[in-house]
Amino acid sequence: SNSDEDIQAQVAKAVEGVKELQESAASFISKTSTDEQALRQRSQSLDSSIRLLRSQLYSLLSSKALDPKLAEKLEEDLQRATCVLADGDAASFLPGKAQGGRFLRMFLGPITVRSSSKDIQLKVKEEYNAYRDRTALLFLLFPATLLILRSWLWDGCLPTFPVQAYQAWLLFLYTGLALRENILRVNGSDIRPWWIYHHYCAMFMALVSLTWEIKGQPDCSQKQRGVQLFLQWAMMQGVAMLLQNRYQRQRLYTRIALGKAKRMDVVWGETAGVDGQLWLLCPILFILQGFEAYVGLQLLKTALVGVASEWQVSFCGVLLVLMAVGNFVNTVQTLMVKSRF
Amino acid sequence: SNSDEDIQAQVAKAVEGVKELQESAASFISKTSTDEQALRQRSQSLDSSIRLLRSQLYSLLSSKALDPKLAEKLEEDLQRATCVLADGDAASFLPGKAQGGRFLRMFLGPITVRSSSKDIQLKVKEEYNAYRDRTALLFLLFPATLLILRSWLWDGCLPTFPVQAYQAWLLFLYTGLALRENILRVNGSDIRPWWIYHHYCAMFMALVSLTWEIKGQPDCSQKQRGVQLFLQWAMMQGVAMLLQNRYQRQRLYTRIALGKAKRMDVVWGETAGVDGQLWLLCPILFILQGFEAYVGLQLLKTALVGVASEWQVSFCGVLLVLMAVGNFVNTVQTLMVKSRF
Ligand SMILES: CC(C)(COP(=O)(O)OP(=O)(O)OC[C@H]1O[C@@H](n2cnc3c(N)ncnc32)[C@H](O)[C@@H]1OP(=O)(O)O)[C@@H](O)C(=O)NCCC(=O)NCCS
Ligand SMILES: CC(C)(COP(=O)(O)OP(=O)(O)OC[C@H]1O[C@@H](n2cnc3c(N)ncnc32)[C@H](O)[C@@H]1OP(=O)(O)O)[C@@H](O)C(=O)NCCC(=O)NCCS
Repeated sequence: SNSDEDIQAQVAKAVEGVKELQESAASFISKTSTDEQALRQRSQSLDSSIRLLRSQLYSLLSSKALDPKLAEKLEEDLQRATCVLADGDAASFLPGKAQGGRFLRMFLGPITVRSSSKDIQLKVKEEYNAYRDRTALLFLLFPATLLILRSWLWDGCLPTFPVQAYQAWLLFLYTGLALRENILRVNGSDIRPWWIYHHYCAMFMALVSLTWEIKGQPDCSQKQRGVQLFLQWAMMQGVAMLLQNRYQRQRLYTRIALGKAKRMDVVWGETAGVDGQLWLLCPILFILQGFEAYVGLQLLKTALVGVASEWQVSFCGVLLVLMAVGNFVNTVQTLMVKSRF
Repeated sequence: SNSDEDIQAQVAKAVEGVKELQESAASFISKTSTDEQALRQRSQSLDSSIRLLRSQLYSLLSSKALDPKLAEKLEEDLQRATCVLADGDAASFLPGKAQGGRFLRMFLGPITVRSSSKDIQLKVKEEYNAYRDRTALLFLLFPATLLILRSWLWDGCLPTFPVQAYQAWLLFLYTGLALRENILRVNGSDIRPWWIYHHYCAMFMALVSLTWEIKGQPDCSQKQRGVQLFLQWAMMQGVAMLLQNRYQRQRLYTRIALGKAKRMDVVWGETAGVDGQLWLLCPILFILQGFEAYVGLQLLKTALVGVASEWQVSFCGVLLVLMAVGNFVNTVQTLMVKSRF
């Protein structure tokens, strides 16, 4: 019949269409992977030849075999080339930074989280900043509320549930931050490994604090000294995060607005305005880091004096001191690297 | 001088090379994304036209306007086309399943975890199975050791630290499983949403159990009843996981060995051997699910009688009963879907 033939023709057409699509898809995938491979090789060989040229330049210069003027010009050319390579469209074909993905692998398995499109990479970065903004406020308000209610409403005694809810939230927050930062790194961010380790430590601390029993009346303000210090540290983290976010967001916007690559900043000094901010930010960060160490030492003291002698208290104390030292060292190193230019 | 010119030429060549590379990379990226877009459109339109044809076929058949023999043949053609579309190379251009990525988004931000290469998708799946194998054993041994040491060495009293270490491990394990399963889903797995929700519940339970105080002597075997039940549930999970892994690994191998697409199984009934196993596995699963509900009810009873009346105990009880019911319903539904063919 008519409708018989009609539907038969349509089905045949669909079957044919699927077959063709399958072929195009297969050839697209194989062609893409070949092209990608070729681009990867070209980027890698250019990257290493630039490295080689740079070291040759230095040795020629130090053996005075080269005119310094010329050397400077060549050095600038190479720097520019490095920028284009590292921040242009070819960047996604350079080998990814670090197998540092152990943490990612543990949670996600062997999936690729590297994005070859600059747009998506930027979006991920912006979303990371937005995420930190959202959380930094809560970071400040949540423990502040707890501490205020403690003295106004709860008679100096923190109830267990809200504190533990806060600690659980911290744990998930830090896990998320650590995952995201690892992803940023895989996508070419220059984030120092320490800032990621810092979040692993904070994860650990949140986890340990969850297991730490929050004693009630009587005498709870004595027994809860450790928890109070922990909450104060958390508030301070919130302040540090807010300040850092402000600075880092501006830094990103400057970069995007200029449409310039990050390593270019250094050469043309275009983020001078933002780098100025850095010198304002850092003293505040140092004070906060000092306070972090102080809280850690207080926790240790509390544990040693025996007011709150659970192992969790000493553990958190040691971690906090380590984190403070690490933060300080790494902030100083960042400043040193920046001031070299 | 000679070396001057030489290095100048080399630098110029590198700069030129970078410029060319940047251009090729840019054109490659834009071409790839255009092609991808086109393939995506073709797959989507074919997918919807197949859907349409299938519903036309049914309505023609039910109004007796079509020869049943012909209808059956056409239906089979369409089924085959669906398989090719869903499991061939075009599959990666069909829209991803579910924005179900809320969980992924929360932890990872807006990064793409969809892989367009079938090989990587299969690798991810195999690694997921290997991960579950590795953990299932620990799942069994860790709580078993704790329970054995309790009666042999610890005089009926579980010490706090190892139990909490175990609970923390569970939390990270379940978070990892939930993340991986979400990634599998985005990559085209047909995993039922419930199995993922189940892991969210388990995450919650591990988190809550961490905050639950493990009381010591005297009378600890009474006070620790909740913890004991929790450990028993965990062991049972280990057994369920081991059995399920065995079955699922065989299922995957059968599929890989046959080089056939998954929806094809259903049509040609090629996994009959494995599906036979399913009928063996399910009674055991049902028993385990019954035990899960029993543990949940015991926890609730413990909480109500007032032996261990922390909110954590009732909360875990309710969660366990919900999980048992959900598991049961979903296992039955899976069986029903499978037996329809
Ligand atoms: C010192 C500091 C302001 C320098 O920031 P910066 O100028 O962005 O530093 P760099 O130029 O070395 O940054 C390199 C990359 O790492 C990132 N980064 C730097 N510090 C980071 C941090 N603490 N967390 C996450 N990412 C960071 C930057 O965004 C940049 O990423 P990109 O390559 O993708 O653009 C910053 O590291 C900081 O705030 N550190 C102190 C943190 C701290 O001590 N907190 C706790 C207080 S108790
Ligand atoms: C019933 C059961 C054996 C069916 O397994 P199955 O035959 O693979 O089921 P389906 O055919 O519906 O599987 C579809 C997909 O979901 C996956 N899947 C099914 N159940 C899963 C589970 N519990 N966890 C993770 N993935 C699962 C399969 O691997 C398959 O993936 P694919 O599309 O990528 O190949 C399985 O769901 C199961 O073991 N459930 C019981 C779990 C349980 O109750 N545990 C706790 C006991 S207290």
